[in-house]
Amino acid sequence: MKKGIKIVTIGGGSSYTPEFVEGLIKRYDELPVRELWLVDIEEGREKLNIVGNLAKRMVEKAGVPMEVHLTLERRKALKGADFVTTQMRVGQLKARIQDERLPIKYGMIGQETNGAGGLFKGMRTIPVLLEISEEMQELCPDAWLINFTNPAGMVTEALLRYGSHPKVVGVCNLPINTRMTLAKLLGVEVERVLIEFAGLNHMVYGLDVLLDGESVLEEVLDIMSDPDRQVSMRNIAPLPWEPEFIRSLGVIPCPYHRYYYKTGDILEKQLEEFKTGTTRAEVVQQLEEELFDLYKDESLAVKPPQLEERGGAYYSDAACNLISSIYNDRGDIQTLNVRNNGAISDLPRDSAVEVNCVVTKAGPEPIAIGELPVSVSGLVQQIKSFERVAAEASVTGSYEKALLAMTINPLVTSDVKAKQLLDEMLEVHKEYLPQFGERLTQN
Amino acid sequence: MKKGIKIVTIGGGSSYTPEFVEGLIKRYDELPVRELWLVDIEEGREKLNIVGNLAKRMVEKAGVPMEVHLTLERRKALKGADFVTTQMRVGQLKARIQDERLPIKYGMIGQETNGAGGLFKGMRTIPVLLEISEEMQELCPDAWLINFTNPAGMVTEALLRYGSHPKVVGVCNLPINTRMTLAKLLGVEVERVLIEFAGLNHMVYGLDVLLDGESVLEEVLDIMSDPDRQVSMRNIAPLPWEPEFIRSLGVIPCPYHRYYYKTGDILEKQLEEFKTGTTRAEVVQQLEEELFDLYKDESLAVKPPQLEERGGAYYSDAACNLISSIYNDRGDIQTLNVRNNGAISDLPRDSAVEVNCVVTKAGPEPIAIGELPVSVSGLVQQIKSFERVAAEASVTGSYEKALLAMTINPLVTSDVKAKQLLDEMLEVHKEYLPQFGERLTQN
Amino acid sequence: MKKGIKIVTIGGGSSYTPEFVEGLIKRYDELPVRELWLVDIEEGREKLNIVGNLAKRMVEKAGVPMEVHLTLERRKALKGADFVTTQMRVGQLKARIQDERLPIKYGMIGQETNGAGGLFKGMRTIPVLLEISEEMQELCPDAWLINFTNPAGMVTEALLRYGSHPKVVGVCNLPINTRMTLAKLLGVEVERVLIEFAGLNHMVYGLDVLLDGESVLEEVLDIMSDPDRQVSMRNIAPLPWEPEFIRSLGVIPCPYHRYYYKTGDILEKQLEEFKTGTTRAEVVQQLEEELFDLYKDESLAVKPPQLEERGGAYYSDAACNLISSIYNDRGDIQTLNVRNNGAISDLPRDSAVEVNCVVTKAGPEPIAIGELPVSVSGLVQQIKSFERVAAEASVTGSYEKALLAMTINPLVTSDVKAKQLLDEMLEVHKEYLPQFGERLTQN
Amino acid sequence: MKKGIKIVTIGGGSSYTPEFVEGLIKRYDELPVRELWLVDIEEGREKLNIVGNLAKRMVEKAGVPMEVHLTLERRKALKGADFVTTQMRVGQLKARIQDERLPIKYGMIGQETNGAGGLFKGMRTIPVLLEISEEMQELCPDAWLINFTNPAGMVTEALLRYGSHPKVVGVCNLPINTRMTLAKLLGVEVERVLIEFAGLNHMVYGLDVLLDGESVLEEVLDIMSDPDRQVSMRNIAPLPWEPEFIRSLGVIPCPYHRYYYKTGDILEKQLEEFKTGTTRAEVVQQLEEELFDLYKDESLAVKPPQLEERGGAYYSDAACNLISSIYNDRGDIQTLNVRNNGAISDLPRDSAVEVNCVVTKAGPEPIAIGELPVSVSGLVQQIKSFERVAAEASVTGSYEKALLAMTINPLVTSDVKAKQLLDEMLEVHKEYLPQFGERLTQN
Ligand SMILES: [Mn+2]
Ligand SMILES: [Mn+2]
Ligand SMILES: [Mn+2]
Ligand SMILES: [Mn+2]
Repeated sequence: MKKGIKIVTIGGGSSYTPEFVEGLIKRYDELPVRELWLVDIEEGREKLNIVGNLAKRMVEKAGVPMEVHLTLERRKALKGADFVTTQMRVGQLKARIQDERLPIKYGMIGQETNGAGGLFKGMRTIPVLLEISEEMQELCPDAWLINFTNPAGMVTEALLRYGSHPKVVGVCNLPINTRMTLAKLLGVEVERVLIEFAGLNHMVYGLDVLLDGESVLEEVLDIMSDPDRQVSMRNIAPLPWEPEFIRSLGVIPCPYHRYYYKTGDILEKQLEEFKTGTTRAEVVQQLEEELFDLYKDESLAVKPPQLEERGGAYYSDAACNLISSIYNDRGDIQTLNVRNNGAISDLPRDSAVEVNCVVTKAGPEPIAIGELPVSVSGLVQQIKSFERVAAEASVTGSYEKALLAMTINPLVTSDVKAKQLLDEMLEVHKEYLPQFGERLTQN
Repeated sequence: MKKGIKIVTIGGGSSYTPEFVEGLIKRYDELPVRELWLVDIEEGREKLNIVGNLAKRMVEKAGVPMEVHLTLERRKALKGADFVTTQMRVGQLKARIQDERLPIKYGMIGQETNGAGGLFKGMRTIPVLLEISEEMQELCPDAWLINFTNPAGMVTEALLRYGSHPKVVGVCNLPINTRMTLAKLLGVEVERVLIEFAGLNHMVYGLDVLLDGESVLEEVLDIMSDPDRQVSMRNIAPLPWEPEFIRSLGVIPCPYHRYYYKTGDILEKQLEEFKTGTTRAEVVQQLEEELFDLYKDESLAVKPPQLEERGGAYYSDAACNLISSIYNDRGDIQTLNVRNNGAISDLPRDSAVEVNCVVTKAGPEPIAIGELPVSVSGLVQQIKSFERVAAEASVTGSYEKALLAMTINPLVTSDVKAKQLLDEMLEVHKEYLPQFGERLTQN
Repeated sequence: MKKGIKIVTIGGGSSYTPEFVEGLIKRYDELPVRELWLVDIEEGREKLNIVGNLAKRMVEKAGVPMEVHLTLERRKALKGADFVTTQMRVGQLKARIQDERLPIKYGMIGQETNGAGGLFKGMRTIPVLLEISEEMQELCPDAWLINFTNPAGMVTEALLRYGSHPKVVGVCNLPINTRMTLAKLLGVEVERVLIEFAGLNHMVYGLDVLLDGESVLEEVLDIMSDPDRQVSMRNIAPLPWEPEFIRSLGVIPCPYHRYYYKTGDILEKQLEEFKTGTTRAEVVQQLEEELFDLYKDESLAVKPPQLEERGGAYYSDAACNLISSIYNDRGDIQTLNVRNNGAISDLPRDSAVEVNCVVTKAGPEPIAIGELPVSVSGLVQQIKSFERVAAEASVTGSYEKALLAMTINPLVTSDVKAKQLLDEMLEVHKEYLPQFGERLTQN
Repeated sequence: MKKGIKIVTIGGGSSYTPEFVEGLIKRYDELPVRELWLVDIEEGREKLNIVGNLAKRMVEKAGVPMEVHLTLERRKALKGADFVTTQMRVGQLKARIQDERLPIKYGMIGQETNGAGGLFKGMRTIPVLLEISEEMQELCPDAWLINFTNPAGMVTEALLRYGSHPKVVGVCNLPINTRMTLAKLLGVEVERVLIEFAGLNHMVYGLDVLLDGESVLEEVLDIMSDPDRQVSMRNIAPLPWEPEFIRSLGVIPCPYHRYYYKTGDILEKQLEEFKTGTTRAEVVQQLEEELFDLYKDESLAVKPPQLEERGGAYYSDAACNLISSIYNDRGDIQTLNVRNNGAISDLPRDSAVEVNCVVTKAGPEPIAIGELPVSVSGLVQQIKSFERVAAEASVTGSYEKALLAMTINPLVTSDVKAKQLLDEMLEVHKEYLPQFGERLTQN
């Protein structure tokens, strides 16, 4: 970083990019980025150009000396990078639509990062990220790989266990989002609130909430038990929690936990939506088209406010804070997906966990929290087993491992249907699953 | 045991008793039982007399000098006992019918030892067993408590964590049954087969199968993958396993695993049966009535062959083998529910596990198997978390803990319905749930 | 802390106090201390007055509005405190002289915090600290207890396992000292150096050394292997490390490790010194007398430079940084003695460890480092076993536990001599060991 | 084992062999050995012939149809073996004399299996055993490798971590010996006594002693605390235990623990013996010469009683019982060195431990004991760290690892002297340490 920071964003043509660019511009003083490389693939060329040109106009308007490069040549971009962020969507929204619709056809929850849908998103994504990991080890061995691509838990698991490049972090905006929301609900500035997060990506619990260093967990549980004040996220059916259940859990669940504690209710809702054809992917597709129409407008040189409806609130903050804390050796606490190292005693030491970390120049290091409360440890352990088998299936292309991952996933309700669904999804997504090779035609 | 062995059987009026008595008679040479005390409660007086008189006729016919005592006074019976077996059913079959039917009403699996039904059977049973544990510590501190009452996993967990009496073992006939069945399928004598069992009660896996000390796991998985040859148990819907799933699992599941790997299929089947009114409990009720009619026949002095259809195959062998191995310091391997002590690395050291043990005069001690395969560890860990919370709810009578146990059980599909179902079941079973006291009327 | 910070220093008459006061004055802007209470016991009244008056003159000269209170009434001082630091020496230097001399008489190393001497210092100190812990829980339940009294590892172990007050940290100046020294040897500013410390108090290793986030461990091991550049501390015989041993260890030992890796060499040296009568305690006693003579000088209103020769370099920084980071919610990394919580996988989860922590308003939380290298784990585990038994002996006053702790300490070379030495030391120190009561006269 | 059992004994020319042969003859009915191959190396040809011919005469006289083969061709012998026992002494007694004498020269304990001597015996032995492990995997993949060669703990560690052949057990006669001795002291038949052993080879503790299944630990500790009745072994200086120390330990130490709890006392004794020149190895050398003179006598056809003075009491029982229990699928409990697998929670899961195992056709499987008592865990963990580093040094021939192993051994008292001693011992033993190659001349 002698001559200024070089950041590479893979999947640079994403609709989220303007938010990231805005974050970098705002932080230019503390984080002087010299080069931002937006990388995409041939199929994304048009989007890359639209977004990339908006990014250039934003930088120019802000008057910061940051070069924005657009390219389809990933290796060229990676050469000498300091930070590489990944936010691509293998198979685009078209694939996500299948991930959401096919399980429902078999009577199971269809979702982007959970259940059968999450498994397939993982299997499409992980091989690409392992390639990037290998290229980084060759072309920018000191750079940090900061992954946003979902399912971030499974992906980080795979990168830690099978990747060539050890400097890996998985990032999700859920923890920062929760902190923001809780601060608002408590009516205090966000800096005064610290949540002791622990678990896995999209399976993370707030074990304690501190206001100025003192626990206000009981107060927050009261809020969470109140249907009118419960925290929710736009992209999850906002079904209210059973108040007494939240009290009995004794910790703060995340919105994705609804898939596991309200499986039946969500499934019912999805079966209805399925008939009317409005899965989340299709809503997002519509939103994205509108966004790209806005981005094309040559007079636009700031992030359009409509982007905020897209759902990735604070995504830019999560990314920029992490990069800045590493660059500035800041030593603050962020909730990240890293190697466990014993920080959560009831999970494997070598596995990825999502947990509070202190972030310095040496990267993020997890804070030890001991054992998870018994009320939540079982579910977290079950999902970790699934993620481990899913990562192995993704890497090896083993049909057996894929079937195993599918069947042991708690949202999949039958070994027989698991096989039928697996076969159909392998067929539908085969273009993005080269690792499964021959097997696909066999079945 | 100076003057011969004294065995006390609590729930002595059970229809299973003749099998146990037959087992003791057969083994009289190695296991000279001087006194067998059959204990029951007032409501079971008639059954106790019928069964007890049959037992006396059996002993007389066999010509062994074993005294059979019938009593409703438990403390008197316990005094000076060497072994105490428990096989009572708190709330009788009437309660089981509710355990099976009420969950179905809410769209969930109704079953005796799993899901909401298992939780309630546990909450009714555990306080009674803790009383027995306390009395034993006072009246027969050197005796072994050998528990057969289901859910044996949850009950053993509670006895180990909250009981006064440390000499506790939980027993199930499933492992011995599986060994018998596999030997038959392999066409060899049962003595040549050793299965390396590990997990929890009704959640146990065969990690390896040895024939004369050499692994034949692959062959057994072939058999298990073959719908025509799959092992099943009479009291579980005999739905065949998906062959490729069994191969991918890589270990031998038990029949109860169907509730977790075929949840949807079994639920569908139960919803149908629910309409026609033939739950398993009702079938059993009919069988029991027929059995007691037979037992009344004063000319009967052997175990009637019809008992075998009842479903507890080898139950007597499991009980008698355990008692005999302790008494004779035999040092053979049996699969039992005991304190983990690190034998299964991924489960809490203080929890009950079902695992191969070596049985000597010092009681059963678990053989260390290291980590469970990742394919199964997550589910086992989840059920263990449930059992721990369920045991705590049973002991404390905490409404919150009961709701938590209910909601985190993987067969319960909604926190909201969990509360509704909990409230209804608490009401229905209130007679047998004194520990919940006041709370019941509050809701 | 509404009305400004209240700090209580127990053992306030210590010669170190002026350094602490200087640290507080320097940091007044970030750490506005309203009241500093210096507490001592009757025997220390004179020293307390001398040191306290110097402190008052220092504060006045600096012109900060900090009140300095001197008192022998501990409970009055504790009432409403925010931070309590403990630096008293139970039995004073007179007792330390015995701790150092008696073991040598039996052919073993005599030292303040290691071996038999460390055990006795612990047994004298721990009961007093447990009393303070109890009083704090009553009089200032939100305050942090920051212990400097040695042996800080054993003391923190006892406070965590047996104390009433959970907010406890043990502090030593060795880690900050090492960081300063290494920075100097590397020729860089100290802020750029981060050492990944892990182990126990006075048994801590630098697992890695980062300069601007990149490892320079190899370079540091080169320095450590170089007899001319080896880090040492004034109060330990500066015997050089065998260069190839340091390379083979692969991590940075601390000066106290010489007692374990050079036992024979140090013993030889001590046996000589013993004859000439110059133990460390006696040197210190002389230094202290000179210091107090200086302190008495009414014209002195700053910390005299001679204090630096006393050996507690950076002790004030260690204390003030910790207090300031908690007060200011700073989130920086400090090396502290806290509950392990799984941060070091091969040590008990409930035990005290010395490890890098992130310090916020919520106090210090340890960073997970996984397993210790096999080259050092065994020794660390052995000392931890000793500390656990020693803590138990200190609390219970059990002669058997004291003998066990003595004998399993690796610097004690014979069970038979252990008993003789124990008996003699129990007799010599009996005034400060009320917990051993009757037993002393029995033997 | 279709056509009868084939046993191969490597180091067949050992003076112990007649005891093993006697054991096999006595057990012929239960353990029908068809072929016994005694293998040795060129240097041992004469001894092999003497012992082998005695073995043949013993078999003939006993009238059992067991073929005894003598050979120097190890591969030929291994082909198709069922059990391979190893009892060779790499470098013979000549090397042992150096292992005992050289450390004393540097002021440290010189001993065959502990300290510097144990390290060198391990480094000479392990490469040979790894070769055997490789050959077995090729020539008799189903056979069990039963190692008696000391230091059996370090050797088993190396075979488990670095060997090709997984079916490995380490055996020592100390546990069976202790059981025999305790039975005698208690005045009961040995079959009634069960000792719960746990730890490492020559570092094993009796955690409990059961007589007919009931603990008699307190009574045994009384005996152990009584100098007149203490258990000792012929080859360890019979220094009595400090009675109160034994009580405080709360478990039964083994004779080798004297090296660690009486280091100073033993060293003193050795320094004296050193002057008079009577190390244990020299005593043994004399005994062996006398034995071989007896063995040569053609009229001798039984094990001569003088062998019993040699020190390997019950060695034959330990070996034959293990082989017989595997062969007969007996399922009895024996104390063996096997992979931990979590049986002792505070030791690494992959390391060798010495613990009670149940022995069936599938080989020995360890019984889980949970955590070691804190009184002993630290020392056991320290020795395990040493063994792991020592095994790595033995396999890699790394000078650094050898120096590390030497220095962290608790019987070695100085890093500087450790290097001097290492260099001298590497030179003296270089003929048997080919793995260290070039390095030797460098230093
Ligand atoms: Mn996310
Ligand atoms: Mn059962
Ligand atoms: Mn210190
Ligand atoms: Mn031995």
